[in-house]
Amino acid sequence: MNKNSNILLNHGSGGRLTHDLIQNLFFKYFDNEILSSQTDSALLKIDSKNIAFTTDSYVVDPLFFPGGNIGKLAVCGTVNDLAVSGAKALYLSIGFIIEEGFSFDDLKIIVKSIAEEAKKANVKIVTGDTKVVNKGKCDKLFINTSGIGLLQEKNKEISSGKNIEFGDKIIINGFIGDHGMAVLSARNELNFEANVESDCASLNNLIQNVLDKSDQIKFMRDATRGGVGTVLCEIAENRKFGIEIDETKLPVRENVKGMCEIFGFDPLYVANEGKVLIVVSNEDAEEVLKTIKNNSLGVEAAIIGEIINEHHGLVVLNTEISGRRIIDMPAGEQLPRIC
Amino acid sequence: MNKNSNILLNHGSGGRLTHDLIQNLFFKYFDNEILSSQTDSALLKIDSKNIAFTTDSYVVDPLFFPGGNIGKLAVCGTVNDLAVSGAKALYLSIGFIIEEGFSFDDLKIIVKSIAEEAKKANVKIVTGDTKVVNKGKCDKLFINTSGIGLLQEKNKEISSGKNIEFGDKIIINGFIGDHGMAVLSARNELNFEANVESDCASLNNLIQNVLDKSDQIKFMRDATRGGVGTVLCEIAENRKFGIEIDETKLPVRENVKGMCEIFGFDPLYVANEGKVLIVVSNEDAEEVLKTIKNNSLGVEAAIIGEIINEHHGLVVLNTEISGRRIIDMPAGEQLPRIC
Repeated sequence: MNKNSNILLNHGSGGRLTHDLIQNLFFKYFDNEILSSQTDSALLKIDSKNIAFTTDSYVVDPLFFPGGNIGKLAVCGTVNDLAVSGAKALYLSIGFIIEEGFSFDDLKIIVKSIAEEAKKANVKIVTGDTKVVNKGKCDKLFINTSGIGLLQEKNKEISSGKNIEFGDKIIINGFIGDHGMAVLSARNELNFEANVESDCASLNNLIQNVLDKSDQIKFMRDATRGGVGTVLCEIAENRKFGIEIDETKLPVRENVKGMCEIFGFDPLYVANEGKVLIVVSNEDAEEVLKTIKNNSLGVEAAIIGEIINEHHGLVVLNTEISGRRIIDMPAGEQLPRIC
Repeated sequence: MNKNSNILLNHGSGGRLTHDLIQNLFFKYFDNEILSSQTDSALLKIDSKNIAFTTDSYVVDPLFFPGGNIGKLAVCGTVNDLAVSGAKALYLSIGFIIEEGFSFDDLKIIVKSIAEEAKKANVKIVTGDTKVVNKGKCDKLFINTSGIGLLQEKNKEISSGKNIEFGDKIIINGFIGDHGMAVLSARNELNFEANVESDCASLNNLIQNVLDKSDQIKFMRDATRGGVGTVLCEIAENRKFGIEIDETKLPVRENVKGMCEIFGFDPLYVANEGKVLIVVSNEDAEEVLKTIKNNSLGVEAAIIGEIINEHHGLVVLNTEISGRRIIDMPAGEQLPRIC
């Protein structure tokens, strides 16, 4: 933070610079136990009840992309943040910052998507706010959603990952990188049809199925900005275990793989909006995988790796060509404004 | 909404067009009892507990103004929304949307202000999010704060105003219009020293004093965008009573009055960020006024009017020169981006 006296795009990328910003600035000044536990949702004890509370701003560009729009995204993203904490998502707030001159028709489509997705996810938008700024003072539309969920005592350690052990398996619920490539393909500057749709979806039902199935769920996180690679690094970071991932098990669509090759991206770091990494005991892994596969949002689920008693603090990828490489936290984001 | 197919600045002004937008678009699609009750915070029943939940985005321009900055504002505004609902503010979320190139030093000052004000208001920032957008894609910095508070059963009807009766008195806790004029004076285009400071302050302690003093508090609302005039119209709107306000009782600083005259503003519609309108029974009014005056944020408090059995649905102002005029909901905002 000393080297740069101005905010860079990468401070919002979810990678290293974001981590630094949070650690060195926000945690420093907002110092409290709940915030610094770094869970996806704030876990609140309110008058003896455990409440999960989370917030996210959405600045995706463009607003509309194959498979969704900023409104759908704003619901899914926040619902998923609550769900991966082990909480039952209940209520959302929504804050719009709209550029003067923005089309009503577009706003209506977005608002409808929000309502539809909220209905699907069985959450209520219970409070909101609207600001409009002068033309040129924001990029069309930004949305903030905050969410509240109810957390059962037995799920309290899922977001901390405290109970992760050697031998635990790591599951992903399907193809990775779809969201990032769908947004990229929707950007005006590109002149090709990618036929990739965003995976943008609310995962709370799938996650509830998983929690109903097993009481051996050690950790969950949705792999959004920074992709699966970043989440794996976050799991391993500063822990007394390593992670081993099998590249051949990673579900990646052929066209996403192709796009990534063309643009020089690694699918491991490309954003998803409907993918969750689940760490589960070896014992329960197959049953949980089956449960996930039975859900329409988990048909392509796979066990992609495990927690190992080697390479402590590191994520090791066994590559398709029988090599090994270390998966690092990305220094910056490959694609800005993906969510 | 049929006439304009694009969003106008006034859709975010808090006046008529904002009301129309909320009624005709958001309520229509997000339809649920809690949202449509139009309280300042969403009042949630979570597992038998009453939780208040609110959200606000802050886009004030400039970010720094006499008496505060966007960070302090983002805490006070959301704390006050919870407090006027009768809830004890507990937790805040904070979401930053930052323009690439924004100064770290400025961000640090703002973050410090947030932390200081949160400490003063005795609330915790428990979750957050940071997005950075390309230079030119937002105006320096926007902040969203959402908040959660605990609401006692006995205070549940304060935000609905259901219990308002003829003869109830209306109290304001001090000078009106300071915030709007302070922000205006800080704008670069103006070349004069106004010596007006924003009244930006967290009112939860003052409001708690009031609630401890009287169980006859019928309604409270902070008079932010749209000012005292807009809140009075909201109280009277569609109700079986009228409101009578005495202009001579309205506390307005001489320099604010002067600025308003120069720029053609009506102090009644100028934004405040530390003012609450309280409707209280005639019986308890004097005691509550005394309690407010004993708080440093209420020294200049005054009873400015009452609920009457005339002019149903209207707000009538008895002017200084013994005239009468109807206070209308403003069609648009006099000053955009005031909060």
